[in-house]
Amino acid sequence: MSGIGNDVSDWWSTAIIDMVPGQIRLRGHPIEELIGTVTFAQMIWLMTRGDLPTEDEAALLECALVAAVDHGPQAPSIAAARMAVTCGLGLNGAMASAVNMLDDIHGGAGEQAVELYTWIDTEEQSGTPLDEAAAGMIDRWQATRTTYLPGFGHRFHKPEDPRAPRLLGLVDAAANQGVVSGRFAKIARATQEVLNNRKGKPVPMNIDGATAVIYAELGFAGPLARGLFCLSRSVGVIAHAWEQMQQGGRNKGPTPPKYRWAYTGPNPIEK
Amino acid sequence: MSGIGNDVSDWWSTAIIDMVPGQIRLRGHPIEELIGTVTFAQMIWLMTRGDLPTEDEAALLECALVAAVDHGPQAPSIAAARMAVTCGLGLNGAMASAVNMLDDIHGGAGEQAVELYTWIDTEEQSGTPLDEAAAGMIDRWQATRTTYLPGFGHRFHKPEDPRAPRLLGLVDAAANQGVVSGRFAKIARATQEVLNNRKGKPVPMNIDGATAVIYAELGFAGPLARGLFCLSRSVGVIAHAWEQMQQGGRNKGPTPPKYRWAYTGPNPIEK
Amino acid sequence: MSGIGNDVSDWWSTAIIDMVPGQIRLRGHPIEELIGTVTFAQMIWLMTRGDLPTEDEAALLECALVAAVDHGPQAPSIAAARMAVTCGLGLNGAMASAVNMLDDIHGGAGEQAVELYTWIDTEEQSGTPLDEAAAGMIDRWQATRTTYLPGFGHRFHKPEDPRAPRLLGLVDAAANQGVVSGRFAKIARATQEVLNNRKGKPVPMNIDGATAVIYAELGFAGPLARGLFCLSRSVGVIAHAWEQMQQGGRNKGPTPPKYRWAYTGPNPIEK
Amino acid sequence: MSGIGNDVSDWWSTAIIDMVPGQIRLRGHPIEELIGTVTFAQMIWLMTRGDLPTEDEAALLECALVAAVDHGPQAPSIAAARMAVTCGLGLNGAMASAVNMLDDIHGGAGEQAVELYTWIDTEEQSGTPLDEAAAGMIDRWQATRTTYLPGFGHRFHKPEDPRAPRLLGLVDAAANQGVVSGRFAKIARATQEVLNNRKGKPVPMNIDGATAVIYAELGFAGPLARGLFCLSRSVGVIAHAWEQMQQGGRNKGPTPPKYRWAYTGPNPIEK
Repeated sequence: MSGIGNDVSDWWSTAIIDMVPGQIRLRGHPIEELIGTVTFAQMIWLMTRGDLPTEDEAALLECALVAAVDHGPQAPSIAAARMAVTCGLGLNGAMASAVNMLDDIHGGAGEQAVELYTWIDTEEQSGTPLDEAAAGMIDRWQATRTTYLPGFGHRFHKPEDPRAPRLLGLVDAAANQGVVSGRFAKIARATQEVLNNRKGKPVPMNIDGATAVIYAELGFAGPLARGLFCLSRSVGVIAHAWEQMQQGGRNKGPTPPKYRWAYTGPNPIEK
Repeated sequence: MSGIGNDVSDWWSTAIIDMVPGQIRLRGHPIEELIGTVTFAQMIWLMTRGDLPTEDEAALLECALVAAVDHGPQAPSIAAARMAVTCGLGLNGAMASAVNMLDDIHGGAGEQAVELYTWIDTEEQSGTPLDEAAAGMIDRWQATRTTYLPGFGHRFHKPEDPRAPRLLGLVDAAANQGVVSGRFAKIARATQEVLNNRKGKPVPMNIDGATAVIYAELGFAGPLARGLFCLSRSVGVIAHAWEQMQQGGRNKGPTPPKYRWAYTGPNPIEK
Repeated sequence: MSGIGNDVSDWWSTAIIDMVPGQIRLRGHPIEELIGTVTFAQMIWLMTRGDLPTEDEAALLECALVAAVDHGPQAPSIAAARMAVTCGLGLNGAMASAVNMLDDIHGGAGEQAVELYTWIDTEEQSGTPLDEAAAGMIDRWQATRTTYLPGFGHRFHKPEDPRAPRLLGLVDAAANQGVVSGRFAKIARATQEVLNNRKGKPVPMNIDGATAVIYAELGFAGPLARGLFCLSRSVGVIAHAWEQMQQGGRNKGPTPPKYRWAYTGPNPIEK
Repeated sequence: MSGIGNDVSDWWSTAIIDMVPGQIRLRGHPIEELIGTVTFAQMIWLMTRGDLPTEDEAALLECALVAAVDHGPQAPSIAAARMAVTCGLGLNGAMASAVNMLDDIHGGAGEQAVELYTWIDTEEQSGTPLDEAAAGMIDRWQATRTTYLPGFGHRFHKPEDPRAPRLLGLVDAAANQGVVSGRFAKIARATQEVLNNRKGKPVPMNIDGATAVIYAELGFAGPLARGLFCLSRSVGVIAHAWEQMQQGGRNKGPTPPKYRWAYTGPNPIEK
């Protein structure tokens, strides 16, 4: 379309939703045919990808979504959500406060791990043996991106994050059944082996590294891996914010009031 | 617990998650037993409620979650998400921008409808006939809260929002099978009848009114109805933000640049 | 204007800014005439009110803006900002995270205090003596709004918030010079006296109660009192977020990691 | 400090604020000595830098803060703020929604321009003539960062952004008075000359390029240039959000409802 008026509609063009009064179609499907027919996980796939997954694909997606819902109130996102409701925000505001914090460091590792795996995959497909491809791309990542390798290492769960082996086992099972190729599971394990050898001790694969395997196996683009992590963690956010609402409190700070903070600047108050 | 140090842990006490290195339990369930066993919808229930739903309850919850994922880019939340990614934000920031807007007016109607239905339910259980209880509580809502009645009326979908009858049909089916009582479906229909009679024309039950029936039937508290709406709509938010990322654009404004805005103040620039 | 196209411009009509290529006018003033001529505080007034303040009015506004910039990292907003930068957000994201939390409980007291003072003012102007008007409106506030009275009481600064007497002294001076009427200072003091008498001990006027006097004296509407508080506190937010950036840290939680949290739910992990 | 309890206070250590009941010191200054004595702009400097500026330095800072307050409702941030209040958010939520969008593309150019200027400055101080240093660092920026050069070019203000020459004139005046060195003004002009020559037509210096000169001249770090831009633009955000509150509206979308959007996906609804 073009011309006065049409360019206004074109400015917001989308292939996701079509609508007239009394009718809504999502990705071409009448909404009333989706309600009661597809699961929430299938709907997530349909909306972000455009097509419907098989039941087996949807089941694997659910594993990743279930695995990442919460890691406790010491996560800054969850703490922020709990503080937010004591400041007067509803669950929408609490969720926004938390999800906003799921940025590159707190919520971006899954997206980055998909990217790293994809580098290794591309390198391997060009003829480099997997272990060399993994080692080379780890080097490249650390040289051009960050010394932290996304998806591996955990400051708390040592020697192993309980979610990772369970998720990888489910990917293996899906690969055996032909649901996915299994090649990103191999890539992730090759990556871990390189890291184990370099560190001389087991480096745990973390939740981001493991869910990234699933997202990559299922063909989700990196940015969607971050988006789906945000969706998953939002479940924990809502649960914690709601629990805090019930506990009450006003302007909840990070520590009990009596601890205050250490002042390190000039001209301190004599205490 | 009490005393120095313990009070720090107590400050962030929660019944949702327990953790030691290598172990995570959510609502008492080891995470590795949940992954691959429960669906995402069941996990949402477990985290927000503390127990696991039956499969039939989870299926009804999925209907509400599926129904509300998107209503197009003219919704301020979706527009904000699409603009946000053109400003440099990742999907976490886009989702935060959108969900923050799901406040009382844009995302609070489900919570409010649960509350209204609960008023009517309480009134009916005290002996008032349902139609009188509905009329009385509508009056009370409009006198003490807002003239807009949450859950009813739609500026676009006339005469009917296609999601509402489908959702109510699924509630009826669940009530017939004994999954839920069906009394909130009756309450919603009684509310609609009062409104139809007062307006002298059909007033459509909207998505908030219909999902609120499901949330109330399943026993979700009002604030959780808002939280679950935010979760559901986040799916559309992610889909739209991702589509916009692929379309590109920098600093996308609300309208094509050539339209600008109408200036209504003093000392206008001669044009 | 009307018709296709014009209605698009009208949708975003504003009396604040006019623009053509090469020219910008704010509230009718060419931007290049404002830059280097008016102070930031005068610009804040011009943008939110439409006219320029006198120098004396601007000076009083600066007092309120200076007074509220920071109250330390135990405030949830400041804590959120510091956590946010360790999650990967820039100062814009940190500021958004913090300001979002300045909601009804954490940042709304100034707006509410302006409203309370205005109730008392209206009541007094209808002929009720000031002390009775204050007592009556306090009762009305606590009956219809919240038991917390906005602007009074402090859980930390006892017996007095050091900012309040300083700010009120400056209002008195401005009233003596005829810059403002001084009647909201009287109203605030009358309110405090009622509270002191009822509690039988001094109830401190807090920063919100004191800045609300200034905002009301200068004729700012209640919502703007909240907006200006957000602007003022943003200065502390930026300072703290920037300090945290320099301190470093990744995914900073609310407490040192070793404290974790107290788990109060079912089936705890044996520790 | 160390040990149980002290480590909790140390976790939130800061050189910005010290506090005991009844006393607040900011950067070592008792708050009551700052109120009524320093301007808001001076306070912004004190909080972010640790020391107080001279009056001339503060005056130059005010120029940058005044210049960037608004660029109209087609900016996604301002549009978001106006939409936000129609969704039920207060001015804090509107401001958060807007400021969150001031990310790398929408609000990061000032920070980036400070960085680019600093590269050129460092190169020049190592002995390279200014014009060569500018050309070389422009090449480096476009090779390693973005093809867009921060601070230059404008899709609307052609041939000149009215704010830039005014701001540079004020920097020149301050340099003549010895307030600042003036070397970043030279760097910015050298950068512009390289661009003009390469493009064969005038490339306007934009608001980010011009304010970055001021921030760099005054010694503000790049991230603070972004922070101060956010603070400045927040003034416009508050003004627009407040104007929208007074205009009313519910769930204001980006365009008048009748325009909807263009659907580009499969299985469209027949219209």
